[in-house]
Amino acid sequence: MNPHIRPVDLSRAARILNHGPTVLVSARHDGVENVMAAAWCCALDFEPPKLTVVLDRIAHTRTLVEGSGRLVVQIPTVAQVSLVNEVGTRSLFEQPDKLAKSGAVFFEMPGRDLPFVEGCSAWLECKAISEPHIQETYDLFVAEITGAWADDRVFRDGRWNFEQADPQWRSLHHVAGGHFYIIGDAVDVARDEPKIGD
Amino acid sequence: MNPHIRPVDLSRAARILNHGPTVLVSARHDGVENVMAAAWCCALDFEPPKLTVVLDRIAHTRTLVEGSGRLVVQIPTVAQVSLVNEVGTRSLFEQPDKLAKSGAVFFEMPGRDLPFVEGCSAWLECKAISEPHIQETYDLFVAEITGAWADDRVFRDGRWNFEQADPQWRSLHHVAGGHFYIIGDAVDVARDEPKIGD
Repeated sequence: MNPHIRPVDLSRAARILNHGPTVLVSARHDGVENVMAAAWCCALDFEPPKLTVVLDRIAHTRTLVEGSGRLVVQIPTVAQVSLVNEVGTRSLFEQPDKLAKSGAVFFEMPGRDLPFVEGCSAWLECKAISEPHIQETYDLFVAEITGAWADDRVFRDGRWNFEQADPQWRSLHHVAGGHFYIIGDAVDVARDEPKIGD
Repeated sequence: MNPHIRPVDLSRAARILNHGPTVLVSARHDGVENVMAAAWCCALDFEPPKLTVVLDRIAHTRTLVEGSGRLVVQIPTVAQVSLVNEVGTRSLFEQPDKLAKSGAVFFEMPGRDLPFVEGCSAWLECKAISEPHIQETYDLFVAEITGAWADDRVFRDGRWNFEQADPQWRSLHHVAGGHFYIIGDAVDVARDEPKIGD
């Protein structure tokens, strides 16, 4: 495994999602694995860490999540924008060679039995929490984050480090079609000296 | 009203949230109005447009949303970072002059009877959809977007225009404490010529 991949304390896992990146959702069930893009994924709680993600019923990955109850939410980078666009616009239902064509490559995190996407900046291993009403009504899934890892070239000491990392590590923020924004510069508010009224 | 504020077609309302900005949530009930910051807000559907937002039970704004069933979700700008930090860290429960100190100023959208925050880049008028189980279990609220507006200096023709607008209009993406990222540059994937394998 890439030696830059380091565990992230679960108490900091929500920080991986706080800034609202577009994510990749992957899952495996009965020997089938797949990955999709999701712009509608959001942190839900700190302790234990949880997230929400919208999985449309036309997404094959949803059937794998429903079957196994488990998923990986990972943060793709600018370097992966074509991959994100590909897996976000084609379905394994219609295109059995979707994964090969997209360029997505999975790796194993020891002991986890889930497909993790190579080249991402951070990974959240999740266990779906059964909430049938909102799953059926809104395609909305709730999951507990049970493991977190990040590449230390862009996330370390419990925080993103986009400002010092190579720009290729920046997160993607989908707008529509093949159009994305990438995350930009940092801005800090001095906690003891609010600048209100300045 | 600011003449740059233009209605956004509801079919495009989800695009206001797709890139994952930190938002301000405001509400009014029984003559009391308030505003809070929320990093955990996410689009949920296109038609009719819906969103999810996490409203902690310590937030006074939550009681106003629960009382009135209505809220405004608006997108603050870099120019408002101190305001966002202020309303996100102080509660009207403990600090009755929170609003005056934060610098938040409300304006009225004709016929809507809700407090809209001046200086934001876009506004979503919402009606809460009662989902008692997830509200109580996860502090998670579902709302339908019933009106949308944006400042045409940064959002027009149904899309964000951060790349041409003054940088002060860029959206904020909260990380932790007083630390934010601002949205960066655009990146486009040619839809008919996927670059996979290049």
